[in-house]
Amino acid sequence: MRIGIIGGGQLARMLALAGYPLGLRFVLLDPAPDACAGQVAELIQGDYDDREKLAQLADRVDVVTFDFENVPAAAAHFLEETVLVYPPPLALEIAQDRLAEKTLFRELGIATPAFAAVDSLETLYTAVKQVGLPAVLKTRRLGYDGKGQWLLRDKADIEPAWRALDGVSLILEGFVPFLREVSILALRDRHESMAFYPLVENRHRGGILRLSRAPYEDIALAQQARDYAGRILQRLDYVGLLAIEFFVLDGQLLANEMAPRVHNSGHWTIEGAETSQFENHLRAILRLPLGSTAARGYSAMINFIGELPDLNAFLGVPGLHFHSYGKAPRSGRKVGHATLRADDPAMLEAELGKLLPLVGVG
Amino acid sequence: MRIGIIGGGQLARMLALAGYPLGLRFVLLDPAPDACAGQVAELIQGDYDDREKLAQLADRVDVVTFDFENVPAAAAHFLEETVLVYPPPLALEIAQDRLAEKTLFRELGIATPAFAAVDSLETLYTAVKQVGLPAVLKTRRLGYDGKGQWLLRDKADIEPAWRALDGVSLILEGFVPFLREVSILALRDRHESMAFYPLVENRHRGGILRLSRAPYEDIALAQQARDYAGRILQRLDYVGLLAIEFFVLDGQLLANEMAPRVHNSGHWTIEGAETSQFENHLRAILRLPLGSTAARGYSAMINFIGELPDLNAFLGVPGLHFHSYGKAPRSGRKVGHATLRADDPAMLEAELGKLLPLVGVG
Repeated sequence: MRIGIIGGGQLARMLALAGYPLGLRFVLLDPAPDACAGQVAELIQGDYDDREKLAQLADRVDVVTFDFENVPAAAAHFLEETVLVYPPPLALEIAQDRLAEKTLFRELGIATPAFAAVDSLETLYTAVKQVGLPAVLKTRRLGYDGKGQWLLRDKADIEPAWRALDGVSLILEGFVPFLREVSILALRDRHESMAFYPLVENRHRGGILRLSRAPYEDIALAQQARDYAGRILQRLDYVGLLAIEFFVLDGQLLANEMAPRVHNSGHWTIEGAETSQFENHLRAILRLPLGSTAARGYSAMINFIGELPDLNAFLGVPGLHFHSYGKAPRSGRKVGHATLRADDPAMLEAELGKLLPLVGVG
Repeated sequence: MRIGIIGGGQLARMLALAGYPLGLRFVLLDPAPDACAGQVAELIQGDYDDREKLAQLADRVDVVTFDFENVPAAAAHFLEETVLVYPPPLALEIAQDRLAEKTLFRELGIATPAFAAVDSLETLYTAVKQVGLPAVLKTRRLGYDGKGQWLLRDKADIEPAWRALDGVSLILEGFVPFLREVSILALRDRHESMAFYPLVENRHRGGILRLSRAPYEDIALAQQARDYAGRILQRLDYVGLLAIEFFVLDGQLLANEMAPRVHNSGHWTIEGAETSQFENHLRAILRLPLGSTAARGYSAMINFIGELPDLNAFLGVPGLHFHSYGKAPRSGRKVGHATLRADDPAMLEAELGKLLPLVGVG
């Protein structure tokens, strides 16, 4: 079987590495000739809306999937005419639009921060009244890792924010003074079976995920997250892995966003779960039985942003697993991660405490 | 860093898959245009003694290693002139010759079955007197998976065996009516540090490994195996992973043979040990710290010979990890393996009992 992947970044790279043991082959489409997954799989260089290249890809593979959610909806629908496409393009479309996403959550009875659509200065003022301050004004589309967001602390911030973000569709969201952010990785396969990984606790800095710990052991929250995720999977007739990020407020989950793909907060599953998110995503879209999502001990995943740390220092840490994405260093770029795994949570924290300062996470 | 691998079979394939997360790149040399590791890394098609191709490979990489031990010694020495080559070619030369191998074991005080060199019918008769019957007459070179062996039960077998194997250098070995065969995977890095995986118990059929279980828990034997392996590693100034197979007779180890490379009886380490044999071999030859060799629970590895079993049936087993080598089916060919892992040994045996009949291992 051959799998096509739209996008050739680190997620495509890790999907391919997880798929080779299943006997799969991979063909990628990416505009960058040096896309890092091209080091481990065949790369078609082309734009995501290049119909000729999309047709070439569709012709070569049995199923197409994605390594990022901002694939043009038209491209996904074009592919669907000739080849199986999972997750469903509808999920992409919803995840590309913060307003559609939050509206879906609300329809499904999933708690979210307060939110309102903004498309003019007038509706922004109305939205502020509705949502209250502080609030966050965000672009509806193409926000990524904290880009395209504007914090409104008081009324004086409203007009500057509007001027900065004017011209695009916006959403105003109530600011959540959260202490904790968690995510769930949920799976649904072509037989409509569902499976869920344990909850993950995430720490961001500058809008970029820096640290994930799993499993985050809170039975009630995990149950709530599985329940919420199940509603979304079923409503979208979803196939593949879906990640949902939540804020934890007063012991309750508030859904923040979803990603219809394998997810950074699931990288720990490569060594820390019985089956990795990458393998399970492939199993799901190929009509193969899902593998166990059980955690194996305790894991912490550290993202490497901008550049890789010293390989020697990191590999010397017992239970550490290193993942370079084969990328050139660049400020703000995700270039790799490491997962630290231990059978004992105290041992994990002890080792983690030594490592975090080395990568600027205190 | 770029790694060159002589040979592009499943061992090269699994080395590459283990090396990508370390940020490594791979270039392979193999005479077969469809060598299965060529699906996951760059392949130079050429014979192992083609100096032009060897020079091309050496020019492209920082270190060269092997995926099989019968690399022509001249090729290994040729490479050594321009590039780092690990394990040392001396280890290849010894492992290519059963007599040199057994002689090394004897010199290092490592118990072996009785053996004697045979190069004429006359020396065969002398060897039979020395070793006793039953005994096994083997080619000194190029024996592989039980090929080139002849069991001598009584004197009447001597002359037919000689006629069948005449013309090549031979070794006669005492027949060991062993109940158990075990192996150890040992590592030595460029800093001369050593590390050892737990003992593995192996079951062969028709001279081909079918089933490995790890860890095989016998403290005294494990200590003896580590001690023996350490002597060999040091004597050969070895760098990389070395596998040594032993018979267990009367509670003692008798060394049977060694393989200066990653080894089939170490495939369980991918999921069943903290660091896989493939990653640790790469760490050793790259002057990186070795990873933990500790087992994670209990593992059983089943080889798939000739053809792959039904992927659906196998993936449905909890804790099972499937490894296709991307090869076409062919009688007697190793085309894949599966590792079953469990935290509890009784659960492992229960699942294994259901699987073994499906692959013809009772």
